[in-house]
This record gives sequence, structure tokens and C-alpha cells, in this order.
Amino acid sequence: MGKNLTSRSEDYSKWYNELVVKADLAENSAVRGCMVIKPYGYAIWEKMQAELDRMFKETGHQNAYFPLFVPKSLFEAEEKNAEGFAKECAVVTHYRLQNDPDNPGKLRVDPDAKLEEELVVRPTSEAIIWNTYKGWIQSYRDLPLLINQWANVVRWEMRTRLFLRTAEFLWQEGHTAHATKQEALEEAEQMNDIYAEFAQNFMAIPVVKGLKSESERFAGADETYCIEALMQDGKALQAGTSHFLGQNFAKAFDVKFTSKEGKQEYVWATSWGVSTRLMGALIMTHSDDQGLVLPPNLAPNQVVIVPIFKTDEQFDAITIVVNRLTTSLRSKGVTIKYDKRDTLRPGAKFAQHELQGVPLRIAIGSRDLENGTVELARRDTLSKETTPIDGIEDKVVALLEEIQLSLYTRALDYRDSHITEVNSFDEFKEVLEQKGGFISAHWDGTIETEDKIKEITKATIRCLPLEGEVKEGFCVFTGNKSARRVLFAKAY
Amino acid sequence: MGKNLTSRSEDYSKWYNELVVKADLAENSAVRGCMVIKPYGYAIWEKMQAELDRMFKETGHQNAYFPLFVPKSLFEAEEKNAEGFAKECAVVTHYRLQNDPDNPGKLRVDPDAKLEEELVVRPTSEAIIWNTYKGWIQSYRDLPLLINQWANVVRWEMRTRLFLRTAEFLWQEGHTAHATKQEALEEAEQMNDIYAEFAQNFMAIPVVKGLKSESERFAGADETYCIEALMQDGKALQAGTSHFLGQNFAKAFDVKFTSKEGKQEYVWATSWGVSTRLMGALIMTHSDDQGLVLPPNLAPNQVVIVPIFKTDEQFDAITIVVNRLTTSLRSKGVTIKYDKRDTLRPGAKFAQHELQGVPLRIAIGSRDLENGTVELARRDTLSKETTPIDGIEDKVVALLEEIQLSLYTRALDYRDSHITEVNSFDEFKEVLEQKGGFISAHWDGTIETEDKIKEITKATIRCLPLEGEVKEGFCVFTGNKSARRVLFAKAY
Repeated sequence: MGKNLTSRSEDYSKWYNELVVKADLAENSAVRGCMVIKPYGYAIWEKMQAELDRMFKETGHQNAYFPLFVPKSLFEAEEKNAEGFAKECAVVTHYRLQNDPDNPGKLRVDPDAKLEEELVVRPTSEAIIWNTYKGWIQSYRDLPLLINQWANVVRWEMRTRLFLRTAEFLWQEGHTAHATKQEALEEAEQMNDIYAEFAQNFMAIPVVKGLKSESERFAGADETYCIEALMQDGKALQAGTSHFLGQNFAKAFDVKFTSKEGKQEYVWATSWGVSTRLMGALIMTHSDDQGLVLPPNLAPNQVVIVPIFKTDEQFDAITIVVNRLTTSLRSKGVTIKYDKRDTLRPGAKFAQHELQGVPLRIAIGSRDLENGTVELARRDTLSKETTPIDGIEDKVVALLEEIQLSLYTRALDYRDSHITEVNSFDEFKEVLEQKGGFISAHWDGTIETEDKIKEITKATIRCLPLEGEVKEGFCVFTGNKSARRVLFAKAY
Repeated sequence: MGKNLTSRSEDYSKWYNELVVKADLAENSAVRGCMVIKPYGYAIWEKMQAELDRMFKETGHQNAYFPLFVPKSLFEAEEKNAEGFAKECAVVTHYRLQNDPDNPGKLRVDPDAKLEEELVVRPTSEAIIWNTYKGWIQSYRDLPLLINQWANVVRWEMRTRLFLRTAEFLWQEGHTAHATKQEALEEAEQMNDIYAEFAQNFMAIPVVKGLKSESERFAGADETYCIEALMQDGKALQAGTSHFLGQNFAKAFDVKFTSKEGKQEYVWATSWGVSTRLMGALIMTHSDDQGLVLPPNLAPNQVVIVPIFKTDEQFDAITIVVNRLTTSLRSKGVTIKYDKRDTLRPGAKFAQHELQGVPLRIAIGSRDLENGTVELARRDTLSKETTPIDGIEDKVVALLEEIQLSLYTRALDYRDSHITEVNSFDEFKEVLEQKGGFISAHWDGTIETEDKIKEITKATIRCLPLEGEVKEGFCVFTGNKSARRVLFAKAY
């Protein structure tokens, strides 16, 4: 199966699309731009959800659920936010179908069932949530309000790609309310830190933490924190964002609280989210021409065991050993699948598990039983060894940790070697075209310059990094004074 | 707070509505018929989800995710299903908003962004899923396909009530595909059994397992299994359904497989679901005039500890004891909240925890510290006792088990004493009006009789019970021959 994949060097984009479908992660549906997330892909997403949910709850957040629909009058209340999303809104206008008198057996929209006010399918939930918070917040005692929602959202994108950009996607959106600006800023930064920690420690994806430039900010935000990752083709991917919303939504929805001092004040807000887009980041960070490569933390099955046998007796003898092994490995917290399907030959199973990125494969045949060995194969390095079955449990646990770390280190090395400082616009363009990756360059801070660079090179400012030295200099494009270097890249 | 609740005897419906809002479970939103599920209500729903998800996976099901939208042409493919849901469909007709030239600052639907084909917001997902399964199923090797989805669905109901009937609700929907009729029937019955087990063992709600009459079946099903619960006001509530769909969807979407014998055959199907409606069942089964009563299995906090103090020194001394206690209780798997808020007096805290149904409350004051005691209060019986703090952990664990069981027994007694056999239509009407509950009566098996009884009494056939003796007799309404008694009731 693996050999049927287009190679990355041949066509990276085609490789990605093929891998997503062939590894059984997701596929396109009958609805334009909407995907079906298949069981194997969804199992990976569930692991991400569980870990993120744990991290959110540990930092005092609670889950809740708000309506899918936003009445148009609420949607337009915060003008910048509305303007930012208006062009990609799916709109419900009717609430009933009826038999089509012209086409027996077919239905049509009932013209008498037109809604008085159209409903926008949420592209994001600030409007409906802040309209609700108005009823929940009266006093400083009601603050902070720390709420998260796991939900589907819809943004009518014209060009879609599985996981990376789909009309409907799954995400979590946190929406918090605070008594002070300082507290809201700290919350926005804290959640961005949590995303970074999750990406690095759990997904083995190194990220740059930063702030967005004004033109790349979330519509309605005063400041957008982000984590930016680098894909194998040298393009950046925004993996998560956390917004300081100032008092914009509080003012749009008139949400005030009585302070300890008895004064009426507008509430300060944040919102933050990551989505099924992370699946795209995961795939494009670690995978290779043989297929998906999964960090053990995210693998639905960390280990797969394949029996090699000809007779039923051989199979039974192998199975006894396998059952003992799976029991002891499970007790160490390892997830295992015993692939005893009789409809596929071992070679086909190997290819499938390779394609699907199972971190470790154990093959056991009759000769192994005699010798007290197994064949142990690592997905990340594609290396194999024959090793004694005695003590294999500790070896597996240690290897899983090693693979998790090694994937991170490999991605970090790649990322770090693809951050290039440039000092002229010629160098900028050359590095962008020849090498790709992040380009660290001085910028004069104007939207005008940002737009022109984007127009000429297709590179955008990914972020103003939060870490590292900040030094003044001169803009690579205009030569004007620059307060600091920022990171440019072509991006997904 | 509790005393502000309307009593059940005064107005059951008002009591329910008030309780849902005052106990912070849910509230109405700005979108007609859609609710906001508040954090406390959502935490209970999460406990239900976790347990159900575990049960589904244990029986071999995997989660996946299918699109929110169903193109109209797919929606109408299975005619009965389409007809059943057509009248309550929210329909997306446009994909963009634009500035309203007549109202500066306002938006309107962009008339140029009309969809070529309207999209129905899923009221249920058989259509989109079976259209997908067509690509997944070729051979008997691809079967059975056992998939579940956690999702939101929309049914445009005219009269809505929080949790019980809302335009948008959350649910899970299982959709399975099988090679044989027998296997599909067994799956449908198995999932209904799982729902019953969940309701009884986890939610402490006794249910009757049964089959729906033809007119109460799911639109598009050949057979609908259900679990029916009885609320405190004598009305029944359908708590879950599991459908044997025959080959209806396979035929509508042309889903065939090659059998072991090499023949092309249509696939057999089931679907099954429970929803946030279970929250309504939970509330109306156990709660009382003081507010919510939660079975310990579903309580976000099984125990709340309230300190009674005047000085900071007293508070500190109590807190040392509480910290020790919470650590040892948590190690036994008990969930605890230490309510040390300084903005509320103990009495107000007691009232709030009573209203929110926390199963056990422990109050500790300075005198308790001296005496080595605590005050322990049970929510279900509203009884209190002073008890030694020594050995309190085992007592708490035992009490939680006792409460879980006792709530079930109480509900079971009520339910069993509200199943009344009647042998005439006068008796039928009298019992229905005077006593309520399930009425076990002979019925001649015709839709006509069923409709007339419904018209006259508002009672519907809840189910043909799967357990208990089946004996012939004569229909209470027509006097015609009847194959068996069935259960009638007024229902939510």
C-alpha cells in the first residue's frame, strides 16, 4: 500500500491528500467542502481532545454548550467580527420542506416557512456567548467566568482541503470573562502556552509562540497570540490562536459588572481555539513516503502484533504467547492491537500498519517461539531487529518514550534549521524560494509594507515571536526603522 | 433558594422549568427553541457521555464524524424517512452575508450567494451516512460496520421545553451495517439493552424495554426498540430508541456487498440514539420540591464540604482537617468540592447544594473539631446526623452506594405501582385521569383504534413490552380480538 503513495518530493500536496485518504483518516463527503472523519482519524482526534480537555479543566475551565445558530442581529453586533466572517457564513432562511408539486417524490423548501430573522450557522461563537454572558455577569463575584465549548463550526471556504481547511470543522473554543485587562491578557497568554505545551509534549510538534500583526489578528480582537508550526515543505501552519478581545464584545453586548468598589465597568474578554486542523499539522510534521508516522501519545494503537503462521496449531501456539504479552503490556498502559485477521497476509498487514503509522510492530512466527524471540520494527526509523521476548515489555515502554522524543527532536532540528535571518529583500526572496521555512526579517511595522511583501512573495507575517532577543534595525523592504525582527513564511 | 421553587403538586410543569434554570442546568437562548447548556448541566451530560461511550466501545463500536449538512437530494432519497422529518428541517439556502445598502452597519443575505442545492441541517444522519457507507462496503469482509457519532442535530419543533424538546439537541447516533437480517436485529436489540442497563444502573431510572407500534416507529425503520421511563407526574418519557432499518437505506442508497458465496446483496442496517433528553428524564425521576436530586454516579460533585467558622484561625484549622479528608476520599474515587467561598454564608451554601442535588454534604465547624465529629447530610432523604470523623471515608463510600441503590428502588416502586391493568375503556379513561402512569390494556392491533384512543384520551401506545407474559384477550376499545396487552400512557 505504502508504495502507492505519491512521494513528498514528487508532489507534497498530492502526497498529503493521498495519505489522508489511504491511511483511513478522512475523506471528502457529498457536501461541498465538508469532510467525513473516519474512525481511525477520529480516534486520534479523541486522544487530542482528552488531553486538551484535561489541561483546560486543570486550569479551572468548565465545559458548556451554546446554540449552533446565531440570529443575524446578534451576529452583526460586534462590527469587526461580523465583517471578518460575513463572507463565509452559511445561512438558514427556512424551517420546513414540503412535497414538490412539480416533482412527485421530491421535496422543496416551503416558501411559507421563511424565518423572520435569518440564522447564521456559527463560524465562531463570541456573539451568541456574549449575548448569554450578559445574563450571567452582574458583579465581580461572577468573575472570572472560564468556559470552554467543544463544537462544530462552519466557514464557507472556497478552497478546501481535508483537515486543513474545511467548510465544517470540529474545534474547541474557550470564552472567558474577567474583571481586569491584566487578568484577561494573562489568560490569553496562559492558553497560548497551554497550546504550545500540548503541541510540543503531546504531538511532538515544535512551535513558535508569538503575537499576530494587526492585519493577521482575529476579527474583533485587540491582540492575537498564536503558535506557529513548520511543515516539511517549508510552509508554516497556524496551529492555535488565543485572543485578547479587550472590551469589544462587552461593549457590543452591553456586559457590565459591579466592581468591588461599586462601580459599573465593562467586562474584559478572551477567546481561544484549536481545531481538527491539528490533524493536518500532525500528518505534515512527522509522516514520510511510506505513510503516516504517529507519536506514541497520539497513536490509537501504540503496538500492533502480527502472527506469522501456516497451520492452526502454529497460530494457537503464537496466540498463547501473544495473550500473555498483551496482558502485561496493557498493565503498563500500552495500547495494543493483536491483528489476527485471516483475510490478509502478513506482508499486507505490515504495509497497512506502516501506512497508518503504528509506532511499533511486533511480528511473531513459529521459529521465534522456538528461539524465544520476536521481530520488533520501529515505524519512525523503519528499522527492524530480532530481540528476546524476555523483558520485551520494558523495552517496548522505553522505545515508545524514545520514539516520542525522537520525533520531536527531529522536527525541532528541521524547524530550527529553517529559521533564517535575512537582511535584504533580495535575500528574503531567495531564501523563501530556495529554502523555505521561517524568515526572520526586520519590518517597519506598517500594514502597507506587510501587504506589499505579501503581494510580491506570498509570504505573510506569521508572528512577532514572544521569545528571543528584540533588537532594532531597518526594514528589509523599505529600509525604514524597524523595532524588531518578525517571522515571515508562506503558510497553509 | 429551594423554597423559591414552585412545588410539584402545585404545578409540575412549572416546577420542572424553574428547577432546570435555578439549579444552573440550562436556559433558553436568543435562538428560538435552542438552549444553552450551562456548565453544571453539561458536567452531568459529560458523565453520561463517558459511560455510554465506554459501553459502546466495549461492544466493538468506533466513533466517527459525518457532515452537519445533508444535501436535499440525499435527504429525500429514503422516502419515509424524508417524509417523517421534512416538516421540521432547518434549511441553509445561502453561503454569504453582505453589507445591507439600506441599513448602514447591518448585514443582509447576499442574493448572489444562493446555493444551487439547499442543505438540510441534519435532523438525523441516516441519509448522509448511508451515502458514505456506499463507498466503504464492497464485501462481507467490510461487515459488520459498527459506528457511532456524537453530534448536534436540529429538529424545528414548534413547542419546545428545556432538555425535553429543543430545536437543537446533543445526542449520539449509532449507525451499523450487517450482512444478515438476524445480525442486524440482534444489534438493534443489544443496543436497546445497553440503553436499559445504562438507565437503570447508572441513572437509577427503571425502564420498560419494548417495541414501538407501527405508527410510533422511527420514519424509515422496520422495527423500533425503545426504553420507556415513567416520570413523577405519571407521564411516560421515551428515553432511548434503537431501530432495525431493514434494507431500506441500503436500497435507497444502493449499498450492496459481495457475500461469502459471491452474491451481490443489500446490506442490513440499524441506528440507535439517546440525547440530552435524558437530562429531562433524570430530573423528573428523582428530584423533589427542594430541587435536583442526583444519583451519585452522575453527580459532578458527590460530596460537598462546607466549613462553619467565624475567625480566620477557625477557618485554617478546619481547612487542615478538610484537606486530609478530601485527599483520602479522592483516593477512594469520590469526587469532592470544598466550598470555601467567602461570599456566601453556610445557610446559603446549603440551600444551593440542595438545589443542585449534591448527594452528600459534610459540614465542619469549630465544635466539630473539638469533638472529632462532622455533620453529614443526605440529599435524597434530607436527613442529617452528627458522626465521628474517624472512619468517615468508608461511611461516605457506603452511603453513596446506598443512595444510588435507594433512588433506583424508590423510582422502581413508583413505576411498578403505576402500571395498571385495565379491562374496559371506561376503566382505561378513569385510571388515566385519576392515577396516570402506564396502562396495560388489550388492543386490537390496528392503527385506527390506536388513533381513536389517542384522539379521545391523549394517551399513546408507549410500547409492546419485551418482558412479561403475552396473553390473548379483547381490545378495550373495539372488543375485537387482541394478541396481547400493550402499554399506553400520556407521554412527554
